[in-house]
Amino acid sequence: MQRRIYTFIGGSKGMWRVTRISPVTGVDLLAVGWVDLVNEDIRALPAGAQWLLRGVTSYERYTNQREKEQLSALQPPLGRPEATCAALIPIKKSAAWWQLPQDERRAIFESRSSHIAASLKYLPAIARRLHHSHDLGEPFDFLTWFEYAPEHADSFEELVQKLRATEEWRHVVREVDIRLVRNVPARRE
Amino acid sequence: MQRRIYTFIGGSKGMWRVTRISPVTGVDLLAVGWVDLVNEDIRALPAGAQWLLRGVTSYERYTNQREKEQLSALQPPLGRPEATCAALIPIKKSAAWWQLPQDERRAIFESRSSHIAASLKYLPAIARRLHHSHDLGEPFDFLTWFEYAPEHADSFEELVQKLRATEEWRHVVREVDIRLVRNVPARRE
Repeated sequence: MQRRIYTFIGGSKGMWRVTRISPVTGVDLLAVGWVDLVNEDIRALPAGAQWLLRGVTSYERYTNQREKEQLSALQPPLGRPEATCAALIPIKKSAAWWQLPQDERRAIFESRSSHIAASLKYLPAIARRLHHSHDLGEPFDFLTWFEYAPEHADSFEELVQKLRATEEWRHVVREVDIRLVRNVPARRE
Repeated sequence: MQRRIYTFIGGSKGMWRVTRISPVTGVDLLAVGWVDLVNEDIRALPAGAQWLLRGVTSYERYTNQREKEQLSALQPPLGRPEATCAALIPIKKSAAWWQLPQDERRAIFESRSSHIAASLKYLPAIARRLHHSHDLGEPFDFLTWFEYAPEHADSFEELVQKLRATEEWRHVVREVDIRLVRNVPARRE
């Protein structure tokens, strides 16, 4: 039993209402009104759904000891009642990226793009869960899910723009930006 | 379509005949006469099969630039006609291992256990393909497949014993060692 797997179902129902779907790089996703997020491995498109995106939470690929401690001290849980805004940002990196050795990927990711250091400044306002899809044969490599209160929407925008301007992002070959608002009261995870 | 996925099917047919299945740590696998290795995602146990193990080839988690160059220069392909012996070694690491930050896992894996450096000495005699299973919800985290000629059987034994004596291996909570011989002529991959 795979307990770390999540499926995002884009369709006509769910806890999250879509306010915007924007293609950032490469092929867009079909427009949908709602996203349902379930902690299950769903493979058959449910009635009324347009797409499914699957990913698993997993061990850290780049985070070092010091960064892990900083993140643990600051990162908030998902499901905070005030965090009624969300973003689902699926990205795919190039084949050349995945061919790079680990030290070079780490150097681009953090030494030269400050992915973790830049993100830390937005904690604890922005909650985040990373889902890995690369090894599942999915169309994207990562599905990142963010939750934040409406008053932090500008900060979130700033974070997203900062990351997109990094060297790391030159390796992103497909990205879609989906923004949502919560439709039903939060349950803490 | 997932093209990097492989399924090892333990049962009554296949290209590889089992000569030995030994539990090394933790729960054993059921005894089978043959292993069939297919480049497909098989989820339903075929008639006559006792078990299925699935894994994907993937990007390198620890290998640095220099090591990658050394490995690329030396590692042989699978399917060499003379490599009629094989080993399938599924291992699972502890939950505590997967909680370690990346730099600490790398330090244990290479700085303190010399996993890559020790293995390099056995190239090009021993061909190897690593399959990742951790994120697939499988019972093991890795399925490593080795192929070698009968005259390198002692070298392979030495490599396996060296690795099992490392600090890295203290984090292995389940390991099975399956040895096989090829039943039909090789096809180069």
